Amino acid sequence: MANFGGHAIPGTFFLFYGFWLAVKHTLQHYWRTNQPKGRQIVPPSFKRMDYIEGGLKIFAAFVGIMVEQFVVDGPHARLYDTENKSWVKLMNWQHGTMYLFFGISGIALVASNASKMVPVGVDRLALSLALFVEGFLFYFHVHNRPPLDAHIHTLLLVAVFGGSASTMLEVFMRDNIVLELLRACLFILQGSWFYQIGFVLYPLSGPEWDLTKHNNIMFVTMCFCWHMAVALLSVAGTFAVVLFTVKRLSGKGHDIEIGMRKTSSSSNYQKALLEQSDEE
Amino acid sequence: MANFGGHAIPGTFFLFYGFWLAVKHTLQHYWRTNQPKGRQIVPPSFKRMDYIEGGLKIFAAFVGIMVEQFVVDGPHARLYDTENKSWVKLMNWQHGTMYLFFGISGIALVASNASKMVPVGVDRLALSLALFVEGFLFYFHVHNRPPLDAHIHTLLLVAVFGGSASTMLEVFMRDNIVLELLRACLFILQGSWFYQIGFVLYPLSGPEWDLTKHNNIMFVTMCFCWHMAVALLSVAGTFAVVLFTVKRLSGKGHDIEIGMRKTSSSSNYQKALLEQSDEE
Amino acid sequence: MANFGGHAIPGTFFLFYGFWLAVKHTLQHYWRTNQPKGRQIVPPSFKRMDYIEGGLKIFAAFVGIMVEQFVVDGPHARLYDTENKSWVKLMNWQHGTMYLFFGISGIALVASNASKMVPVGVDRLALSLALFVEGFLFYFHVHNRPPLDAHIHTLLLVAVFGGSASTMLEVFMRDNIVLELLRACLFILQGSWFYQIGFVLYPLSGPEWDLTKHNNIMFVTMCFCWHMAVALLSVAGTFAVVLFTVKRLSGKGHDIEIGMRKTSSSSNYQKALLEQSDEE
Amino acid sequence: MANFGGHAIPGTFFLFYGFWLAVKHTLQHYWRTNQPKGRQIVPPSFKRMDYIEGGLKIFAAFVGIMVEQFVVDGPHARLYDTENKSWVKLMNWQHGTMYLFFGISGIALVASNASKMVPVGVDRLALSLALFVEGFLFYFHVHNRPPLDAHIHTLLLVAVFGGSASTMLEVFMRDNIVLELLRACLFILQGSWFYQIGFVLYPLSGPEWDLTKHNNIMFVTMCFCWHMAVALLSVAGTFAVVLFTVKRLSGKGHDIEIGMRKTSSSSNYQKALLEQSDEE
Repeated sequence: MANFGGHAIPGTFFLFYGFWLAVKHTLQHYWRTNQPKGRQIVPPSFKRMDYIEGGLKIFAAFVGIMVEQFVVDGPHARLYDTENKSWVKLMNWQHGTMYLFFGISGIALVASNASKMVPVGVDRLALSLALFVEGFLFYFHVHNRPPLDAHIHTLLLVAVFGGSASTMLEVFMRDNIVLELLRACLFILQGSWFYQIGFVLYPLSGPEWDLTKHNNIMFVTMCFCWHMAVALLSVAGTFAVVLFTVKRLSGKGHDIEIGMRKTSSSSNYQKALLEQSDEE
Repeated sequence: MANFGGHAIPGTFFLFYGFWLAVKHTLQHYWRTNQPKGRQIVPPSFKRMDYIEGGLKIFAAFVGIMVEQFVVDGPHARLYDTENKSWVKLMNWQHGTMYLFFGISGIALVASNASKMVPVGVDRLALSLALFVEGFLFYFHVHNRPPLDAHIHTLLLVAVFGGSASTMLEVFMRDNIVLELLRACLFILQGSWFYQIGFVLYPLSGPEWDLTKHNNIMFVTMCFCWHMAVALLSVAGTFAVVLFTVKRLSGKGHDIEIGMRKTSSSSNYQKALLEQSDEE
Repeated sequence: MANFGGHAIPGTFFLFYGFWLAVKHTLQHYWRTNQPKGRQIVPPSFKRMDYIEGGLKIFAAFVGIMVEQFVVDGPHARLYDTENKSWVKLMNWQHGTMYLFFGISGIALVASNASKMVPVGVDRLALSLALFVEGFLFYFHVHNRPPLDAHIHTLLLVAVFGGSASTMLEVFMRDNIVLELLRACLFILQGSWFYQIGFVLYPLSGPEWDLTKHNNIMFVTMCFCWHMAVALLSVAGTFAVVLFTVKRLSGKGHDIEIGMRKTSSSSNYQKALLEQSDEE
Repeated sequence: MANFGGHAIPGTFFLFYGFWLAVKHTLQHYWRTNQPKGRQIVPPSFKRMDYIEGGLKIFAAFVGIMVEQFVVDGPHARLYDTENKSWVKLMNWQHGTMYLFFGISGIALVASNASKMVPVGVDRLALSLALFVEGFLFYFHVHNRPPLDAHIHTLLLVAVFGGSASTMLEVFMRDNIVLELLRACLFILQGSWFYQIGFVLYPLSGPEWDLTKHNNIMFVTMCFCWHMAVALLSVAGTFAVVLFTVKRLSGKGHDIEIGMRKTSSSSNYQKALLEQSDEE
């Protein structure tokens, strides 16, 4: 993974996942705040969204582990080389371990939706652990590197451990839209920062960065804050656009409205929406 | 900013902001505890206060960024000097980044009041992040300085990160007057400590401070606690004075009472107040 | 304890305890979620389970302290050797101190069940303190050792302090099945990691590990994550098996159902169960 | 304070305060759990207890500051010696600062009881800050000392910052008996550890301790855990004795029962007590 592509691929994944979370939780938030008190059944379209998300996570984790193992210069499922008395391609094994935990979080998400027996909050706990393991392995990854390289990975840990902590909070505070959007925001930040790491360590064009210069470290720190600002604004924008779209569509009586029509109490729901739009 | 004025200006801002928060939240607290149960509409004067606060924050952040960029020895919007292969005036860029996040917190405050669509707590989250970013940039600011200089800035971080943590708590615990006053207190502490840093590093008169002497570090640590005591007493005093004033004015039936008269249920409210003052 | 057995014994204890916790809390969770609202009396079989657990803890702690004191090369209750001016077998005394706190947590568990006077949550506080003391003593244990030895013990602290923190949370959030299973999981992780420490530091067969090689440290870090994954899956499996078994047994009207029959309102309970199984 | 007495005096204060807290909160707990639902007025005897506690704290803090200033070798209110260009007796000033914050916490306690205007929780916030300031000043106190001296003071910080954190929690979770007893326990631990520091650094008899020996550090760490166990058992014992005594006295209809008789609804209360004792 020691090239630009090796950082762009996870970056792309995290960026997509962050935006997906922002859209999903905005829709759920709209549904929560716009339904009458008595109705508690989650519409089936939300379940379907979670099944797809979980399934994709499991699939991506599986593919990721396979690729790390069986690329040309991979370990090919060999862990210890008894001849040379050394571990085989530990980096690939570590990346596989990270994927494994994201896969487990996908299983937890599917299981949470499939059965009422699974305790509420297990999906968030599994995601929090996946982020924790990612940060944990990165933390011991970073030693003995040039200052800028170490620093730029340490900044990544701010996004990773921040995400782990805020997701852990969600185990106890379900359906808190601020926490959910914060999580989306931290995934986007992580994704865009992976790209930034790629640009700094393996510049596509132009001169190499001096990995020991103090000013470079200072710039990179500030740059991380800019990424944070952009991530915040992206999530805020997504939230506003999705909410505005859903509101206009459901107001006009269209059928889209994320499949809620199929449930039996949709007429009451429609009424409640109209009353609300009258008030405003 | 490496002079006395450069520390006095932010100090003044934070001092004013801290006192403003103490006054605002005391008024809100008085209103919360003195209204009958059924009434839930926030009086328009509170909204107006938040609009003004948010607007001023956005304006101040914008002016701050412009000044940092276009002062005589500023970077003039140039980030990288390709000729000398070096970053241009990173300090000014960092200060601008800090202002940017305070500006974002102003936008969040205005948006929270303007629309019900904005989730409750976003204003506090944005303020908490602004403080976090301030502390984050200061933290990496401090390396490679003489001991006293590093120490006096580290003490500032106690106020900054303390404020960030307590404001983050407010995302989940709205309308907790103790947390609100603590936030006011930590802003005042931050403001007065900026002045102290100015006095120590750039003394207006008298001899220079020896930046390596251990006793100076010990004194400065203790001095921080004194600032904390003064900040506590200032907030307590402001709280008492504002509450006493509002109580006396509303008891006499004056029209001030922060504009609540304009709402329709003011007569019930008046009654409730009278009953309450009879009890005491 | 500086041999394989010295790590296998506590490992076995923690493994058993973790699985026991998973079974116990799954049964309690089943009972909580399947009884009608009005019924609040905890069935006597749960009390009996806690008495046995607490009694065994006290007994094991007592035996552990005695063994540490009176093994052949133990301190035999002598703390300071005035002749040589040195402490006698501090390691044994430290282990005894750890056992003491687990014994106290056993006393707290028994007392919590025996009397209503004991405040709710004391049993969890005592267990959290026992884990804190274990981690606290280990933390200062680790200095001045070869890198791999220090690192592998530091990883143990993640499980120990994680368990202490999550158990402390349970003082305030009773009957949260996610936290309870997390605690079970962290005990299993601790247990299996004790075995891993034994295998690495005192290999039963094959060559010695090089305690200074960086790659060994990297492998061990990753290996800790694998143990975590296995612990997670073990707890999830135990939860599913126990829940499935209890459900099938109680559905068929068998008498097992953890002794709940003896309580007076069992017929209502039975009805509620049937209704629920119809729904599914 | 660099002698045995200088550690025994604060130790005695903290020990007394810890036991006082255990007694006070046990009485309050008994009152909370034994009164009928409708009754909410705190009996005047509890207010009186808080007035006395607060008054004593203010008085002790004032005396402490005066003594630190005007002992023979004190600074006599002089802070800076312009002739020698050095600070005067910074240690005495630091101790005075610590006392000041405990005094402020006394003022907050008195104010909380005197007026309903003071927000609930301010007394705990002030106590938490007093402990934070104590730990904060100690933390920067400890540098450049021999290993054992530094370590034994670091262990003190565990009790101090632990107390600060648990007291801060009480701002949000009032009337939680577990937290209240934990606070009492940590004050007792702090008190007894002050004595231990005195015994180690200024032994009354026998040989001096070798401040650099690693084994001494290991012993002292373990000894801290023993102090913790004794503090836990002391608080548990106090809780049991006080609760048992109050129960027996109130059961016999005696007049003691901490002054609750004076309130008007005492007959209902008496009935509720009798009913409860029948149940048991």
